[in-house]
Amino acid sequence: MKQSQFFYKTQKDLPKDEPSINAQLLIRAGFIDKLSAGVYSYLPLGLRVIKKIENIIREELLKIGAQEILMPAMHPKENWMITGRWDTMTDLYKVKEGDKDIALGPTHEEVVVPLAKKYVQSWQDLPEVDSDKNIYPLSLFQFQTKFRKELRAKSGLLRNKEFIMKDLYSFHANQEDLDIFYQKAKEAYEKIFDRLGILESTYYTYASGGTFCEYSHEFQLITEAGEDTIYICQDCLAKGKRIAVNKEIKEKTPKCPECGADNFKEAKAIEVANIFKLMTKFSGPFELFYTDKDGKKQPVIMGCYGMGLGRIMGAIAEVYHDENGIVWPKEIAPFDMHLISLQGKDGQDIKARAEVFYQRISQKSDFELLYDDRDQTPGKKFADSDLIGIPVRVVISSRSLESESVEVKSRDQKEGSLVKIEDFYKDYCNK
Amino acid sequence: MKQSQFFYKTQKDLPKDEPSINAQLLIRAGFIDKLSAGVYSYLPLGLRVIKKIENIIREELLKIGAQEILMPAMHPKENWMITGRWDTMTDLYKVKEGDKDIALGPTHEEVVVPLAKKYVQSWQDLPEVDSDKNIYPLSLFQFQTKFRKELRAKSGLLRNKEFIMKDLYSFHANQEDLDIFYQKAKEAYEKIFDRLGILESTYYTYASGGTFCEYSHEFQLITEAGEDTIYICQDCLAKGKRIAVNKEIKEKTPKCPECGADNFKEAKAIEVANIFKLMTKFSGPFELFYTDKDGKKQPVIMGCYGMGLGRIMGAIAEVYHDENGIVWPKEIAPFDMHLISLQGKDGQDIKARAEVFYQRISQKSDFELLYDDRDQTPGKKFADSDLIGIPVRVVISSRSLESESVEVKSRDQKEGSLVKIEDFYKDYCNK
Repeated sequence: MKQSQFFYKTQKDLPKDEPSINAQLLIRAGFIDKLSAGVYSYLPLGLRVIKKIENIIREELLKIGAQEILMPAMHPKENWMITGRWDTMTDLYKVKEGDKDIALGPTHEEVVVPLAKKYVQSWQDLPEVDSDKNIYPLSLFQFQTKFRKELRAKSGLLRNKEFIMKDLYSFHANQEDLDIFYQKAKEAYEKIFDRLGILESTYYTYASGGTFCEYSHEFQLITEAGEDTIYICQDCLAKGKRIAVNKEIKEKTPKCPECGADNFKEAKAIEVANIFKLMTKFSGPFELFYTDKDGKKQPVIMGCYGMGLGRIMGAIAEVYHDENGIVWPKEIAPFDMHLISLQGKDGQDIKARAEVFYQRISQKSDFELLYDDRDQTPGKKFADSDLIGIPVRVVISSRSLESESVEVKSRDQKEGSLVKIEDFYKDYCNK
Repeated sequence: MKQSQFFYKTQKDLPKDEPSINAQLLIRAGFIDKLSAGVYSYLPLGLRVIKKIENIIREELLKIGAQEILMPAMHPKENWMITGRWDTMTDLYKVKEGDKDIALGPTHEEVVVPLAKKYVQSWQDLPEVDSDKNIYPLSLFQFQTKFRKELRAKSGLLRNKEFIMKDLYSFHANQEDLDIFYQKAKEAYEKIFDRLGILESTYYTYASGGTFCEYSHEFQLITEAGEDTIYICQDCLAKGKRIAVNKEIKEKTPKCPECGADNFKEAKAIEVANIFKLMTKFSGPFELFYTDKDGKKQPVIMGCYGMGLGRIMGAIAEVYHDENGIVWPKEIAPFDMHLISLQGKDGQDIKARAEVFYQRISQKSDFELLYDDRDQTPGKKFADSDLIGIPVRVVISSRSLESESVEVKSRDQKEGSLVKIEDFYKDYCNK
């Protein structure tokens, strides 16, 4: 993609009321645009990141047998009356349509449970995990736009009124099956965070389980910008396990639920995901039952597993940046390589050489390439490149061409090095 | 994918108030689920079709230089006041948030125009088409969920209150550039319809251009179930051109705008897409100007190009079905091949053979395979297979195994034929 034609411009003027680092970086670098408080557009750069996050999540969830669906945003009031949340959920947007009332879904238990009811009748519809035979419990996920009336929508992508969420729901015949799948989902989440480049800073955090189970769990990414406070178990950490408890349960939980020690250290963090054993909280009100092997009616046991895509993108920008801009982890960078051509005194020749390099790398290698072919000063090009934060920068200049080379530099390093163009082709052009 | 584990069940009980063929077929076959009037969930089968439609559209739009973004559903009232449509658009959903008013976007001119304003300053930001140099006008598209207060939401996926739409907006320095891009967009649409398998039944239909231009154009798919009436030019048709005028402009337009003849034939049709020269209708109110080569301020000229994904899916189900179920065009079928194993007297052996075949085809060929491994009667399996409508059915039975064969049948043919398993592998296992 040539930058001269890319829908992208670095923005100097930041919107007011946008104190968060992630919003400042992402808006300045042209990843997102603010429409109103807590409501953003994803521009081509930003949507590329979102799609990469989405694909990583999808790949890992398919591996644990989850199936993708897409549920609507508009929910009948009746469904929300059945669970009682029409009146208790304060961040629910309500829409009038004549004398009908509609909820804009902030979550989808009220839709997925009645849906599952059409499909689940007997214990045979609720298999337990059997990895050898590739059999998995019934679990359904979606990437879908949620709506929440957020009063504190001042944290860029961390707290939005409208946001893309991956929500996964699992259905089980008994708690043992749920426990096994819950563990599988936790491991899938860890693989996702590993691929996103944030596993090492993410803590499995014990949180309140409400009235239905002892604990739920949050995945908390450590950063000074975090709105949440968590307490990291130092004993677990010494053994290489990242375990914490959240503020809400800290007082009631003086000891680490994992190891029993009481050696905590406070930290600021962003909740990037959560998992919850719903048990019969929603299957009860919707009468989602199954018939067991003895012919008895039993309630279906459920789990739910959430992950906000925009929030993850915002959290990563909060954690991975330096004074010049974002430093994207490799797997979710909008492009793999940023090619920059500098105009020398013999400018035209360099542009022609850069064009050849661009075409060849685009067609013959696996790199996704952004090529800065604009008529801009080297200073502007380097500054924009640092701001955008693509992992590898490749510069073609009169200096590099003296040795038939390009200058290759990682975004996270200070110094680049010259690589012969022919060697570059040999190493990367595999098509 | 094994059908025994697939989130799918053919439904016998259809919801009330669902007279349309597309809804009946798609619900019965387990592609969609009705939540309320005009609001549906896409189940795994249905979402696979939607994703294939989406990918075809994306591929063809990228070829004409369009860039993908994602704008939000929640729009500030102010934007809709600027165009006046807050008061005039009767199908606009309005949401209260404290003393703020929000529109749920039924279309996105009110968001994309102010967005473009941040990026477009001079004529250089509005290039004309230069296919040789791979230069295209600025155009932005998205796949996004729209909301429209539809009173007539009784046509399955043809008329929804909440629906996924591809909307594309283009920006030009003058009308000539718009005209050229409009033609490119029309051609891209024709390629899309060709790949969707509906080009031969789709008519380029002249419609009202409102106050800003002479005509807009609809792409109308001929079917008895269509809500629209169009008038097909028989003279154009004789020359192999599918041209029509819509009902709204028929009286004012007694002659074919394309060839001048007045030889029309009435037909029922579904509008699957439309394209519109917006001219300065929206750039005017938002003061989206650019500076021309002489330094003068000029209004940006715009086009918009819509396509409803669910509507296309519904329209295809209306057109491509027989008495037994849907007959999906190849490129958008949820799977390429439906493998069915029948239990003979030596049932277990057949299942084992089918498993080997399934694994090999899954791993070594390009086919996306749905494998009906359920313990069901042959009659039920064949009926479900016809209902789902996957293009190729492959049956393994004690009869086929007598000659070490599988029985291969196209969904649109009555009779299948035996193909040696080894030959099948040779022909299709290319990995």
